[in-house]
Amino acid sequence: MTFAISKTASQIAPFRVMKILAQAKALQAQGRDIIHMEIGEPDFASPSCVHQAAQNAAEQGLTHYTATLGLPALREKLAQFYDGFYHAKVNAEQLVITPGSSSALQLVLTAILNPGEQVLMADPTYPCNRQFVHLLHGEVYSVPVTADSQYQLTLDHLKQHWNPQIKAVMVASPANPTGTLIEQAELLKMAQFLAQRDTYFIVDEIYQGLVYERPAESILAHQNLPQNVVVINSFSKFFGMTGWRLGWCVVPEHLIDVLDRLGQNLYLSAPTLSQYGALAVLESDALTELEQRRQIFQQRRNRLYAAMQSAGFTLKTLPQGAFYLYWDVSEYTQDSERFCAALLQQTGVAITPGTDFGKEAGKSHVRLAYTNDRIEEAVQRIQGFVEQYR
Amino acid sequence: MTFAISKTASQIAPFRVMKILAQAKALQAQGRDIIHMEIGEPDFASPSCVHQAAQNAAEQGLTHYTATLGLPALREKLAQFYDGFYHAKVNAEQLVITPGSSSALQLVLTAILNPGEQVLMADPTYPCNRQFVHLLHGEVYSVPVTADSQYQLTLDHLKQHWNPQIKAVMVASPANPTGTLIEQAELLKMAQFLAQRDTYFIVDEIYQGLVYERPAESILAHQNLPQNVVVINSFSKFFGMTGWRLGWCVVPEHLIDVLDRLGQNLYLSAPTLSQYGALAVLESDALTELEQRRQIFQQRRNRLYAAMQSAGFTLKTLPQGAFYLYWDVSEYTQDSERFCAALLQQTGVAITPGTDFGKEAGKSHVRLAYTNDRIEEAVQRIQGFVEQYR
Ligand SMILES: Cc1ncc(COP(=O)(O)O)c(C=O)c1O
Ligand SMILES: Cc1ncc(COP(=O)(O)O)c(C=O)c1O
Repeated sequence: MTFAISKTASQIAPFRVMKILAQAKALQAQGRDIIHMEIGEPDFASPSCVHQAAQNAAEQGLTHYTATLGLPALREKLAQFYDGFYHAKVNAEQLVITPGSSSALQLVLTAILNPGEQVLMADPTYPCNRQFVHLLHGEVYSVPVTADSQYQLTLDHLKQHWNPQIKAVMVASPANPTGTLIEQAELLKMAQFLAQRDTYFIVDEIYQGLVYERPAESILAHQNLPQNVVVINSFSKFFGMTGWRLGWCVVPEHLIDVLDRLGQNLYLSAPTLSQYGALAVLESDALTELEQRRQIFQQRRNRLYAAMQSAGFTLKTLPQGAFYLYWDVSEYTQDSERFCAALLQQTGVAITPGTDFGKEAGKSHVRLAYTNDRIEEAVQRIQGFVEQYR
Repeated sequence: MTFAISKTASQIAPFRVMKILAQAKALQAQGRDIIHMEIGEPDFASPSCVHQAAQNAAEQGLTHYTATLGLPALREKLAQFYDGFYHAKVNAEQLVITPGSSSALQLVLTAILNPGEQVLMADPTYPCNRQFVHLLHGEVYSVPVTADSQYQLTLDHLKQHWNPQIKAVMVASPANPTGTLIEQAELLKMAQFLAQRDTYFIVDEIYQGLVYERPAESILAHQNLPQNVVVINSFSKFFGMTGWRLGWCVVPEHLIDVLDRLGQNLYLSAPTLSQYGALAVLESDALTELEQRRQIFQQRRNRLYAAMQSAGFTLKTLPQGAFYLYWDVSEYTQDSERFCAALLQQTGVAITPGTDFGKEAGKSHVRLAYTNDRIEEAVQRIQGFVEQYR
């Protein structure tokens, strides 16, 4: 006898990257030399000051639940961080600490979305965003974007596609899988356009900090920002703390209470020692270490871009942030999953098919993550691999 | 201009205990001597072996995301733990590690519940269970239970209330807020009754281990358990690791894949260092320490029960597990919130109004948590307080 699963859950897509990762690990176990460029997290461990702070807190017995909205000291410190790092004035009250930005995304969408309402987002996009909306019985309104707009939504897209069913628009800058940015002036205009239409604007800044050739920027630095803007962020990427599962969102005041009530029920509180660890990672010593890591990522991006160009590959964008290069492989294939599987099998280079991120262009794009230092070697192997398609 | 929140989110109830806790802390800050009996977590810090194991893992750089279903080593070790501790044969594959059992509850309900379907549970119950169902647009079918059945659901309740709209039944043994158990023979009959009706049976064993005068027991020890049984558990309570946010569920095989896909989207993975910490807390040394703590809770329960009886209070159940006493205060009040607020204000004893846990009896019941050692003093203060109601 077997018992039914829910209709919505049965339709939730798995991550293709997990399949690639599992296959890559299986090959590795067989003794194959694998270059991991599929993994969406820094290869560095978290800064040692984080471990130290967590250990100190544990020794003091600080291992209980915290307030659902987060440790007051951490919310304060993050507010100061916004001031120093982003020149943004944020009230500590508006900072809601969550178990990873994954939970922040879930919480915010749950707080605002009614069944049947739409959320507009780019195709390609961070895959979970679509699934959060499905789980809330909302509708994903996907707008295909191309290299013409750096694979990002623009004000023009909003003007063209906005309709009264749209409750929220989601963007990420820098974005996953493309590493591209939206300029601040454009972001602000988008926020204002949506505010006039009673529509939320969810800006995922989880890769902020990891930007190249320009300072890190937050939409929160704008004065008189309308009350429809929600910013998502995390200690995972720039701060290198993925496994600590700690994120946050910055929300307009009218959302604080509802997020508190939702968090009380959905997860009680974010991991306590991670919160103490995060207090340390916001100190200037740690920030210096993170700046060095940022420079390493920048060098890797430059190396990857240069190597791809020397190999004769056409690159349509220069990613300005995160640690991803989104590569149009339409001249070789319209089946990126098969392309990635064959690449892994034949060369040991693991990359992610675009189908994780979107329907439209997903089949003809792949994502390379420079979360691995063997960049030139990987590109060489890829170059050999694509010969068979010419 | 203010932007709308969703209908469902606006109806999510906050925890009253949080209000009591905040008031208690405010009074404490004013210099008042507060006895905290509102808090639903062990007052002990997590065992030091957990801190040590987490620190070792951090030093080895093991701070990245883990597999969504959890570290394979932890799933293996938990399977062994079931064998040794509960004499239950569980396949490691069926063990899904989650960020707190809160996430396990959310994941499982999301995996099985369609909008409009019902989940049957007792009134009183753990408050989040109702909210998880509301968030999924399901319906809560509440069955008022009394001291006659130890405030627990029975097979008879199921026979009386089951209908085809019911997709799942939720119980907890020991339960929050009552500390009472369901006997294993009864549990098994309930599971079988529901299996014949295509209905899931979600058994929350998060307070297992913390049981008195009898060995810890899991429904999983039964052979030939039907495939509708899902067990929820956590490192929070018995293992004293609340702030580490780590739980798990044991699920029939047909649910593993859907839980994996849901977890990949909802939270990516459970906190990594918590998982390494958990590996240590399952070792025999730690289990010895936890057994000592269990004995302390048992002594406290005995002291609380004895002190309440000497004070002339009527107690309808002897709690057999967890760290809660559920007390019928109907002879004093039909407004437990006001009762708890006045008790705190006048005597400094913080307890939780029953309204967190249920509508029916919530107004005439309160929950005392013996997560504090000043038991006799608390009861004395309560005794003085209720004089005014006689
Ligand atoms: C754009 C984006 N947002 C959010 C997340 C979630 O990360 P976390 O839950 O670790 O904060 C990710 C993870 O890859 C991401 O790429
Ligand atoms: C019966 C019950 N289940 C589940 C939980 C959730 O606990 P956690 O998420 O810490 O595992 C609690 C917490 O109080 C509880 O009382």
